[in-house]
Amino acid sequence: MAYILQVDFKHEGPFGDEMVGAFTDLATSINEEKGFIWKIWTENEEIKEAGGIYLFETKEDAENYLTKHTKRLNRFGIAHVNGKIFKANNSLTAINQGPVR
Amino acid sequence: MAYILQVDFKHEGPFGDEMVGAFTDLATSINEEKGFIWKIWTENEEIKEAGGIYLFETKEDAENYLTKHTKRLNRFGIAHVNGKIFKANNSLTAINQGPVR
Repeated sequence: MAYILQVDFKHEGPFGDEMVGAFTDLATSINEEKGFIWKIWTENEEIKEAGGIYLFETKEDAENYLTKHTKRLNRFGIAHVNGKIFKANNSLTAINQGPVR
Repeated sequence: MAYILQVDFKHEGPFGDEMVGAFTDLATSINEEKGFIWKIWTENEEIKEAGGIYLFETKEDAENYLTKHTKRLNRFGIAHVNGKIFKANNSLTAINQGPVR
């Protein structure tokens, strides 16, 4: 069983290659989070939003990370963070080549 | 370059194994959508929500599918669909083993 955490928030930049330099250290640290499997970094420069799609081993791991990440974003000046946690439906996901385990 | 489509909406059920039987045909059809790469089916029985995380080859493919899927959900009686499209940041995603290509 795996759990999806989807996070998005208003983001004035940087985007693209400039975003990579700004967040490489953060990305590296995320690999050490308990129960973390993978993250897809998401960005939309047109509507000034960014976020991430994460896969965690348990719901508790996803919840703990969301709490930690929301506090961090608040310190960065991002007041409102959209965060939702879902269980992956493995049988349907398998039909659509979804990368869960 | 790949694009994430994240979709979620209120869903009264079915969940889990019962959801599989109800949506196997739909899942199979999604494999035929233009530019579709994969989908993770998401569900949260506690808060009565469901949805999906999709990867598409282009932004246009993601937009076209979101339009089609929103109309289908409306026909199912789901009036409000949250749908957001993001570009994946490939360099940061690679640090975190994210399954994009």
